Amino acid sequence: VWLVGARGAIATSVVHGVAGLARGRLEPVGMATARDPLARLALRPLESLVLGGHEVASGSIATAAEELERNGVLPATLVELCRDEARAHDARVRPGVPDGPDLAGVAGADGLDPASIELARAPARERAARLQADIEDFRRVERLERVVVVNLASTEAWREEQPAWRSLDGFEEALDGDTDLPASSLYAYAALRAGAALVNFTPNRCASLGALRELARERGLPHCGDDGKTGETLVKTALAPMFAARALRVLSWQGYNMLGNRDGRVLADPAHRESKRRHKDEGLRSILGDPALHTEVGIDYVPSLHDWKTAWDFVHFEGFLGARMSLQFTWTGSDSALAAPLVIDLVRLADFAAAAGESGEMEHTACYFKSPLAGGTHDFHRQWRRLLEYVERHLA
Amino acid sequence: VWLVGARGAIATSVVHGVAGLARGRLEPVGMATARDPLARLALRPLESLVLGGHEVASGSIATAAEELERNGVLPATLVELCRDEARAHDARVRPGVPDGPDLAGVAGADGLDPASIELARAPARERAARLQADIEDFRRVERLERVVVVNLASTEAWREEQPAWRSLDGFEEALDGDTDLPASSLYAYAALRAGAALVNFTPNRCASLGALRELARERGLPHCGDDGKTGETLVKTALAPMFAARALRVLSWQGYNMLGNRDGRVLADPAHRESKRRHKDEGLRSILGDPALHTEVGIDYVPSLHDWKTAWDFVHFEGFLGARMSLQFTWTGSDSALAAPLVIDLVRLADFAAAAGESGEMEHTACYFKSPLAGGTHDFHRQWRRLLEYVERHLA
Amino acid sequence: VWLVGARGAIATSVVHGVAGLARGRLEPVGMATARDPLARLALRPLESLVLGGHEVASGSIATAAEELERNGVLPATLVELCRDEARAHDARVRPGVPDGPDLAGVAGADGLDPASIELARAPARERAARLQADIEDFRRVERLERVVVVNLASTEAWREEQPAWRSLDGFEEALDGDTDLPASSLYAYAALRAGAALVNFTPNRCASLGALRELARERGLPHCGDDGKTGETLVKTALAPMFAARALRVLSWQGYNMLGNRDGRVLADPAHRESKRRHKDEGLRSILGDPALHTEVGIDYVPSLHDWKTAWDFVHFEGFLGARMSLQFTWTGSDSALAAPLVIDLVRLADFAAAAGESGEMEHTACYFKSPLAGGTHDFHRQWRRLLEYVERHLA
Amino acid sequence: VWLVGARGAIATSVVHGVAGLARGRLEPVGMATARDPLARLALRPLESLVLGGHEVASGSIATAAEELERNGVLPATLVELCRDEARAHDARVRPGVPDGPDLAGVAGADGLDPASIELARAPARERAARLQADIEDFRRVERLERVVVVNLASTEAWREEQPAWRSLDGFEEALDGDTDLPASSLYAYAALRAGAALVNFTPNRCASLGALRELARERGLPHCGDDGKTGETLVKTALAPMFAARALRVLSWQGYNMLGNRDGRVLADPAHRESKRRHKDEGLRSILGDPALHTEVGIDYVPSLHDWKTAWDFVHFEGFLGARMSLQFTWTGSDSALAAPLVIDLVRLADFAAAAGESGEMEHTACYFKSPLAGGTHDFHRQWRRLLEYVERHLA
Repeated sequence: VWLVGARGAIATSVVHGVAGLARGRLEPVGMATARDPLARLALRPLESLVLGGHEVASGSIATAAEELERNGVLPATLVELCRDEARAHDARVRPGVPDGPDLAGVAGADGLDPASIELARAPARERAARLQADIEDFRRVERLERVVVVNLASTEAWREEQPAWRSLDGFEEALDGDTDLPASSLYAYAALRAGAALVNFTPNRCASLGALRELARERGLPHCGDDGKTGETLVKTALAPMFAARALRVLSWQGYNMLGNRDGRVLADPAHRESKRRHKDEGLRSILGDPALHTEVGIDYVPSLHDWKTAWDFVHFEGFLGARMSLQFTWTGSDSALAAPLVIDLVRLADFAAAAGESGEMEHTACYFKSPLAGGTHDFHRQWRRLLEYVERHLA
Repeated sequence: VWLVGARGAIATSVVHGVAGLARGRLEPVGMATARDPLARLALRPLESLVLGGHEVASGSIATAAEELERNGVLPATLVELCRDEARAHDARVRPGVPDGPDLAGVAGADGLDPASIELARAPARERAARLQADIEDFRRVERLERVVVVNLASTEAWREEQPAWRSLDGFEEALDGDTDLPASSLYAYAALRAGAALVNFTPNRCASLGALRELARERGLPHCGDDGKTGETLVKTALAPMFAARALRVLSWQGYNMLGNRDGRVLADPAHRESKRRHKDEGLRSILGDPALHTEVGIDYVPSLHDWKTAWDFVHFEGFLGARMSLQFTWTGSDSALAAPLVIDLVRLADFAAAAGESGEMEHTACYFKSPLAGGTHDFHRQWRRLLEYVERHLA
Repeated sequence: VWLVGARGAIATSVVHGVAGLARGRLEPVGMATARDPLARLALRPLESLVLGGHEVASGSIATAAEELERNGVLPATLVELCRDEARAHDARVRPGVPDGPDLAGVAGADGLDPASIELARAPARERAARLQADIEDFRRVERLERVVVVNLASTEAWREEQPAWRSLDGFEEALDGDTDLPASSLYAYAALRAGAALVNFTPNRCASLGALRELARERGLPHCGDDGKTGETLVKTALAPMFAARALRVLSWQGYNMLGNRDGRVLADPAHRESKRRHKDEGLRSILGDPALHTEVGIDYVPSLHDWKTAWDFVHFEGFLGARMSLQFTWTGSDSALAAPLVIDLVRLADFAAAAGESGEMEHTACYFKSPLAGGTHDFHRQWRRLLEYVERHLA
Repeated sequence: VWLVGARGAIATSVVHGVAGLARGRLEPVGMATARDPLARLALRPLESLVLGGHEVASGSIATAAEELERNGVLPATLVELCRDEARAHDARVRPGVPDGPDLAGVAGADGLDPASIELARAPARERAARLQADIEDFRRVERLERVVVVNLASTEAWREEQPAWRSLDGFEEALDGDTDLPASSLYAYAALRAGAALVNFTPNRCASLGALRELARERGLPHCGDDGKTGETLVKTALAPMFAARALRVLSWQGYNMLGNRDGRVLADPAHRESKRRHKDEGLRSILGDPALHTEVGIDYVPSLHDWKTAWDFVHFEGFLGARMSLQFTWTGSDSALAAPLVIDLVRLADFAAAAGESGEMEHTACYFKSPLAGGTHDFHRQWRRLLEYVERHLA
């Protein structure tokens, strides 16, 4: 498992989680792959996973773990227990490639690793080659059968899609011309060229570009994304189908998200927030079948909350006889503790798909994403059924 | 359509709703049968429905409509518009049979119609015959092709199930012996004997008894129930599958309901509340697969709310790494405006099933009930899918 | 009583409210002046009030009343009952002066009365004279002892304060030079020149300028403002003192407001919203004694809510032993029904002060405002105590 | 400081809190006595406090601390740091007297210390003497100037007040006759006879009996109570005055409390809950001046919450024009972390009052209690002002 953003809060939770599970000291709460019927698939056992990754920020996983411990996410006993595994992961981390606009000094630029800054100065083609070499080295040195690359990096600034990104030829030209490419797409290119399966847990462009979808198909590699459906959006897409089935008319759906971790800090910048909002918005209109639905999603940086994301949603709806009603909910959850088990599930499912020779967008994983690359619906329950059908096919 | 509880808040909303829809002055918001794919079934047009029913309380539908208007449920213009239809319905209402314990003076005994009190003094066999005759007269006088009886009466006091209720023979004996039988079951018996299809929208025993299920099958009649899934329970059974699919561990699920209408007043009595709570409780444990789940459902009578039920649910759950999280929601809705379109849907579906010669528990209607007679799951989305499958079969 | 914004939602509620109260058909709920000890002051009886005002929008109060009736704010019976009073008020309404930036086509410019648009073309000095003449005519024609002018107009776009506004001489020069002046300050100037007491219920500049405070003192007239404390801010300033007294450390206080009336539409424009947010923000930092407090106030336009403002506040705080706790509240109220009784209270208090020969900022009315012109505290309970002390002094 | 319930969650928090403060390793968040103007009184410095107490349950403070640490109330570092102080306190704890009904096997009877059970078998007079001797020994052995006894025991079962409890003579007779007396009153009697000041932080009878108020006055000792105002009731009594001042008509105020600690377990028993509810109920009716107010307080035992009490309140109110509005709030806080700083404040204030020779009910402490023995109002802000006035008098 190669994590992009290898010392971030989610990666740190994944590293400690996998170690705790492998040692039998943690229960697999939050992991659908640990429960029937998914558990009956021949998924890779957690003990056999090896972790490493790319990281642009300086610091160590020990510091990240300490912060999560202080904020009540990682239990002190687990941090103590898995110190060796954390250190081993840390040793396998290589300098990553910062996204262009972030280098320019916006949010997230502080605390960049000098090696990453240097790497960023290299031409695009060279950067990609370097990332690919890191992944190939990882596989060779650790004697791994397969590698799954997971993008867990911070949200990148929003950019309009470029025509050149739509075909692999165009992308290769852009690489040679050293034009601005999202860092996430460089990682994706490198991963696919290195023959790795790919999971994009972020709202970044990554492999959603036509060019890279083409590359994945060409190489026969499975990949999935975009943007992990961990909290408020999960609840939204679980509730909205109820309104649709009951033929209730949703008049307005307002959502307010507050978070205080690094992700929150990055999203305080409007250009970065834009990338996130696009993903959070689209589901409701599609499930409710109302393209003109009044819906807004706010994201605010509230430092005191750290990793404990708190969201309030207000649904104003009309029932029979014109009666005006409402449903409101407050969600309070640790972002990292919600994301980590989904990442582990996806790694196992991507590895399973790669072993089975499946390639292209893994549409059966749509229930894991805010903006699935394939799968055709945002309705969580339909997405989940699709995953169950996949499992049934593979168990038959 | 023969409504038991023919001047209650739900019946009043149904009467005005059907009239408003038939006149094209109301939109069918909240009615799944008005939307694809259900709308493509050959359901009975609303203009052809004739309404009447049984009622134990004195008063008129005009008074009931006025109260709903004052509380913001029925629009003043609609009440004005449908005065004729309401009067016609009122004229078809016949005295009903109060439930035994209610006669004894508990909640609900005030305001009983003298004719109903007198009827209650007759032996059980005679009461049943009288109810049956009313339904048969209704069909004959109005020259109706089919009758659907809908139970909308107030919640009855809780009673343990009697062995005699399990078989039709036992039930007939109980009728002859004049032992205490739930009024709702008398209505159900009368309806089925009169050849009517049956919908139980209440938590009362009605046709859930083995004896009456047997009678329905014997007569080849479709029926469904129990207890309309209108508000808080709807949300619960739409949300709980999300926790199950994500393998999150629900630690506690507390629900507090407040309502101020007649239903609320009746439920303020512990014996009546018991009937309701049994239905509200069972779904969660089954969906979450945790028979030991800590869950409680409170129901409080708050007169100032009238028909505007307000519920707060608190879900405490554990995620990965032992992190404790929560989801809480507040639901505010008009009980009658939520129930009425479901009643209309069910009438049309029961009529359709009767026309198609289907008999027994209508398992495809499970999504409409807190405690479905058949259908095998409380998961709202699975129930809904089952209804869609039924529709597909009938459209094929 | 001369209302600026004479056909807006608040004015319409005031007109119907005063008429209903005078006819003894409405209870004075929400009016502190109707309760002891304020009721013991020799305040002007409601029957003796005469209403009129300025308005920039076309339309009639009948249309405004109809809209409020449809949205469940004004009871149909009251609208019916007070048709004469509403018509009489309507007949006394004169064209107002739109604020400069609004004329330029921003939010609020649609639906302007042609007479108002024409008036806007006149030089500032002439506009002021015209407004003053209207008020003087009103007093003369209706043979009134005193006039109280109340500003209820929509929020104006934010403008930095100009040095010229600080002194009366500067203001007079600006008038002559026809430079951009907030319309609210033109009204205030006209009111004071006409010898009227003044209430600013809006967040607009109005009489908060040094120039106009000077004018009020010079003319011996009482005035008060700014921005009625009707809902979320009221709750905030009632709760925050509790945290301060208990020495609990507030870490973050986030507030999200949603509203769908004309005020909401105007506030959807960032320049207008800025005026409002400044007023909503300042109280907390001052009560909690923490100038660096993390606090944000969101205002969103949600048309389906109409007049029913809904706000959610989240207070994150630290207690003993570093424990992190939270308080969250949801406020749902009709903006107009909350504002109208405060307006009536303030009219009576301003009239009382004028009769008593008191001049300048009425600091005893601080509890009515988000941003009181005087009074020295935002703590609602201290402000309320100050009002009680004023009453005691006048009853002694 | 002599704590009754010396190894309970609050006592454990007090012990660690005082130690952490004395070592300068904790900030006095939540302690009004640490802030101006109270901090300017000559209160006893925290370093000079010595702690001990009575306890009926077996176990150690180390176990209690561990549980609080696991539930995120006590920081691990603080527990580590204050191990010596905790051990010293533990060594000073003596067997307490269980309340009669609890001995009989109801909630709370499990886990009783054998020494306490034995003590409970002694006649009432002897039990009181033994408690008194413990307190006197504590003072002598530790060479203390003064002792303040604080009752932090679990809620006792509700009992009607007995005529004998009204006068000291009656109480002495009851002691001799060995009739059923609340354990809390035995402690109070013992404390006052030992010359100690007394704080009743529980809803138990304690020194609220006429007999013991008489004893306190006779001995010239200050005392205060009943029932610490820590959470939901605090918010209620801070908000209700706002509705009263604004002349808004509260129609219903429903409160639902959930808690999962030992206190919650004890309150799951109806007889014990009754004691608590009486205290939570009375404030609202008095502040709102409506003796017929519809208000209910629910208390539910939700084990998964442990010390993290969560409460939801729903306030339904009417404004001007008959408009129906609502305010709802959710409070989430650690019961122990909220209570501990109030206990420390009260110890210092009681000690200060004793040093100043003040005797009887300390009416200036009303803001600390749900059901103050004196002070005349439940309005938190008036209570707080009364405390400030007391401070001013003593600083003058």
